Amino acid sequence: MGTEISYVIDTLYAIFAMTLIIFMVPGFAMLEAGIVRTKNVTAVLTINTLIYAIASMAFLLIGYKIAFGGFGAEGMSQWAAFLFQMAFVGKVVNIMSGGVSERAKVVPLAIFTIIMAAVLYPLVVNVTWGTNLLEGTVLALSMYDLAGSTVIHSTGGWALLAAIIIIGARKGRYTKNGGIRVIPASNIPLLTLGAFLLWIGWFGFNGGSVGSIASKEGADAVALTIMNTNTAGLAGAIMVAVLMYIKYKKLDITMILNGALGGLVAITAGPDLYDIYTPILIGAIGGAIVVFGVTFFDKLRLDDPVGALSVHLLNGIWGTLAVGIFAVNGSDITFMGQVKGIVLVAIFAFVTSYIVLFIINKIIPLRADNDEEMQGLDVEECGIEAYPEFKRAF
Amino acid sequence: MGTEISYVIDTLYAIFAMTLIIFMVPGFAMLEAGIVRTKNVTAVLTINTLIYAIASMAFLLIGYKIAFGGFGAEGMSQWAAFLFQMAFVGKVVNIMSGGVSERAKVVPLAIFTIIMAAVLYPLVVNVTWGTNLLEGTVLALSMYDLAGSTVIHSTGGWALLAAIIIIGARKGRYTKNGGIRVIPASNIPLLTLGAFLLWIGWFGFNGGSVGSIASKEGADAVALTIMNTNTAGLAGAIMVAVLMYIKYKKLDITMILNGALGGLVAITAGPDLYDIYTPILIGAIGGAIVVFGVTFFDKLRLDDPVGALSVHLLNGIWGTLAVGIFAVNGSDITFMGQVKGIVLVAIFAFVTSYIVLFIINKIIPLRADNDEEMQGLDVEECGIEAYPEFKRAF
Amino acid sequence: MGTEISYVIDTLYAIFAMTLIIFMVPGFAMLEAGIVRTKNVTAVLTINTLIYAIASMAFLLIGYKIAFGGFGAEGMSQWAAFLFQMAFVGKVVNIMSGGVSERAKVVPLAIFTIIMAAVLYPLVVNVTWGTNLLEGTVLALSMYDLAGSTVIHSTGGWALLAAIIIIGARKGRYTKNGGIRVIPASNIPLLTLGAFLLWIGWFGFNGGSVGSIASKEGADAVALTIMNTNTAGLAGAIMVAVLMYIKYKKLDITMILNGALGGLVAITAGPDLYDIYTPILIGAIGGAIVVFGVTFFDKLRLDDPVGALSVHLLNGIWGTLAVGIFAVNGSDITFMGQVKGIVLVAIFAFVTSYIVLFIINKIIPLRADNDEEMQGLDVEECGIEAYPEFKRAF
Repeated sequence: MGTEISYVIDTLYAIFAMTLIIFMVPGFAMLEAGIVRTKNVTAVLTINTLIYAIASMAFLLIGYKIAFGGFGAEGMSQWAAFLFQMAFVGKVVNIMSGGVSERAKVVPLAIFTIIMAAVLYPLVVNVTWGTNLLEGTVLALSMYDLAGSTVIHSTGGWALLAAIIIIGARKGRYTKNGGIRVIPASNIPLLTLGAFLLWIGWFGFNGGSVGSIASKEGADAVALTIMNTNTAGLAGAIMVAVLMYIKYKKLDITMILNGALGGLVAITAGPDLYDIYTPILIGAIGGAIVVFGVTFFDKLRLDDPVGALSVHLLNGIWGTLAVGIFAVNGSDITFMGQVKGIVLVAIFAFVTSYIVLFIINKIIPLRADNDEEMQGLDVEECGIEAYPEFKRAF
Repeated sequence: MGTEISYVIDTLYAIFAMTLIIFMVPGFAMLEAGIVRTKNVTAVLTINTLIYAIASMAFLLIGYKIAFGGFGAEGMSQWAAFLFQMAFVGKVVNIMSGGVSERAKVVPLAIFTIIMAAVLYPLVVNVTWGTNLLEGTVLALSMYDLAGSTVIHSTGGWALLAAIIIIGARKGRYTKNGGIRVIPASNIPLLTLGAFLLWIGWFGFNGGSVGSIASKEGADAVALTIMNTNTAGLAGAIMVAVLMYIKYKKLDITMILNGALGGLVAITAGPDLYDIYTPILIGAIGGAIVVFGVTFFDKLRLDDPVGALSVHLLNGIWGTLAVGIFAVNGSDITFMGQVKGIVLVAIFAFVTSYIVLFIINKIIPLRADNDEEMQGLDVEECGIEAYPEFKRAF
Repeated sequence: MGTEISYVIDTLYAIFAMTLIIFMVPGFAMLEAGIVRTKNVTAVLTINTLIYAIASMAFLLIGYKIAFGGFGAEGMSQWAAFLFQMAFVGKVVNIMSGGVSERAKVVPLAIFTIIMAAVLYPLVVNVTWGTNLLEGTVLALSMYDLAGSTVIHSTGGWALLAAIIIIGARKGRYTKNGGIRVIPASNIPLLTLGAFLLWIGWFGFNGGSVGSIASKEGADAVALTIMNTNTAGLAGAIMVAVLMYIKYKKLDITMILNGALGGLVAITAGPDLYDIYTPILIGAIGGAIVVFGVTFFDKLRLDDPVGALSVHLLNGIWGTLAVGIFAVNGSDITFMGQVKGIVLVAIFAFVTSYIVLFIINKIIPLRADNDEEMQGLDVEECGIEAYPEFKRAF
């Protein structure tokens, strides 16, 4: 195939993949708006909107250069290469912001977004997918992580863990005698819509990460990647549905969808490496991890309204390990190489996020005060209620 | 054009088309969540999610081999070819599940989904688009059905008819003195969103069914197909709007959108065969059929909350007949060949669905008991209300 | 690259771009359904649906020939070329209908849609992007307007201004003593979803307007166009967030999203002409214009519930002027050439829209009567409430 033809096709393909990922912006927004209580819906939508705007802008102005050394990609339009990478950035913060919703204020989250998108995440990308500052050092990573089980999902998850430790649980979530109060999701259709927009976005996320579609091998790798990505999502959903039905005789849609997302996170490190049946196992375990994780983190009193620690952090780790266990195509991949990558990114992401959030928290408190939290964040943060005309049942 | 280039382009195109079809998953989910009463919204979303997960998995593990003899497509990546076909499967069950919503339980529907996606639908595909077990027999079909007016929409519609006969109408829908109680849709924006996601998905459904875009003729056929698909949807919507306005002086959006969907179903058998004006007629008749059909099925006391019998079954038949009447390009097409296809698929789909549903119903009752139906299915099936914070007006 | 390959790739690309634009149909519908009060939601959804159906059909039957002389595009499938242009048409009316929502009746808007899509908009396109009836005359335009800051957005905006002058403000919006009553948006998640669907649609709108992706230069131009489009949206959102926070200490999501849309409108005239940093300035000014404009039009008592005059009309003008100020690539572009285009389209669009709306208004009053407006338009126009089961707080 001529180089101009492949340049054109790969540019078109990157734009297509980028567009699918951008559907994850309303995807996260609808998912989180559906999960939180009505009094916090506008705040959640606002922070999601600002994350996309601020993270993308910070990456354009600063982060992209740190990660990849600047513009000038070859093999496709450099602008398409940028757009594809830019589409990733906000997701890291989305993972984090969702888990501290209903009590974290918008402005400090926006400030954290700048630092994460301009510096922290680009440094993680640099040493994994980018120009690699660590090359030749003892810390150099050999981890295989096609589309970011660790680079995106665990990074966001560790930042979230740091944030939850600093900010604490929602008021009333955990009672003194060890009880856990269920806080029901306020809008299940929005939650479902959001989950499916994320699912579709994942086709672009993982499929686009293959890089080039413009050869027979490239086309096969892309199609296999998308197929395996989807299969892991299917398996995660089915696994959780079965577990829920066995345990409670109820098909809890919020858990089933989180199971699908858990499967999708888990496959993300190596969807191009497996045969077409292994993703069933990886995704099913991903779903089971979500069920286990949600209970586990509640026992630790780490309050995470959207289940992001289970979906993104635990499954990001699991997915990266799975590459070391199951990969059949990548001969340089070792289990310990995967572990090293997980551990180093974990230390970096958790420590730097903790420090940054700690400092921000000293200047502008991350957490809404008690009155604001009770009233809901929408009025104080945004001046706008999400559903002003609907009479509340409670 | 070189074979590698066409392989790449057709793979990319199939992935694009598949992605559009996957938007129909939230499309059906939002449409149905908007139509049913708030007390049944979570159950509807749950079954829609499970249909996608279960049907796709069953097709991956069993159905695809029955329909097409297994992997190994040429001309594009075999994985892309699979993904495109997989995207269709759940739709057949979506058509059916929507029409029995507000009283059918999730678990038996999930079991039916396995059988439909693993065996029944693949057999229909086998004898129409697939390896064709009937070839050389007297039953061999010559029906032209590009994207499934019969294969998808009528098959789902016949399964629905079987299900409605077994399960009966919603309580209170038909009164003893022959009256019909109107049960209003609970969320019109969701319904509208769902309808447009379906509309957009149709571009992938019909456009992708052309198969190859990688030649001048292929590109023209694809573009004409999508144009004609869209035109039939426009005509269906306009026709119903005019009929509604003449009849009631009210522009009933639920009927208008169903008119669009009816037009889209009707064009699906042959969008590549017509000039650019014939779809106006086909779609307008499709819209009129919806208006007529909704009244007709209510007279028969076949309770179908989403109008699927009119949209999918009647228009599936009409669209397949229309190919026999209007097609100008397909020289092997005969009206009687179309009728034969409609009739044989009808018999197979109705009888097998009826038997399977009858057996399932003996083991696990399809229908929620009276108390559960009155309370709404959400609490008992899923343990989750769709909008717990909104006070109900009734 | 061979001509057949470029024919195929450009056809595929046009279909991709068209599909993204069609997401703007639910985009506008959800945005407007989220902004208006619950009692007018169904009416807004109905007119949005009819606009897509009627405008597209009118353009197919009449308008396309006026604009471009009929079918027969070269370089890609003529049907794909049509589909791409067809996707634009309804947007002009969407811009207008949103601004008169909550008091304009559906049927006269539908009639206006026919005339706008069949004649008025096609004439604007004819003299800008089309066969150019004015060529060789003193009125011939040299304006550069890649994707319609003037052709689409200002045209719709001028039609809206004419409509608001004729139809007047919503009852109670402006009090006798000069006060302005805030009428809160009824559903912020829908509004947010709609805004992001519009944002994504813009990638197709502007990216597709480059025309050909099938060369290295084409691919670069397309990718730069989409990147710059997105950047202007980011900048618009950030600018408004900063202004809102400084002014009110509240992050008003409705204004922030309108700021993003304002930035997107402003970049639309020349996203292919700028370096990658200029769009930050253009978009930020676009956002500021929205903040200023909303107050400005309220002072003039021009009641525009969705802010379309600020987002589309003012930013359409600003974006077209910006090309004259900042463009570095287009050597034939002059500031006065841009001004001439803005002024002539303004005069044509405003005067013809005013006349047409004036005549329609004499035959079928545009405005709902007082009782209907107080009750909300949904019951009288459509016979359907948007959320019948939710108890109203007021």
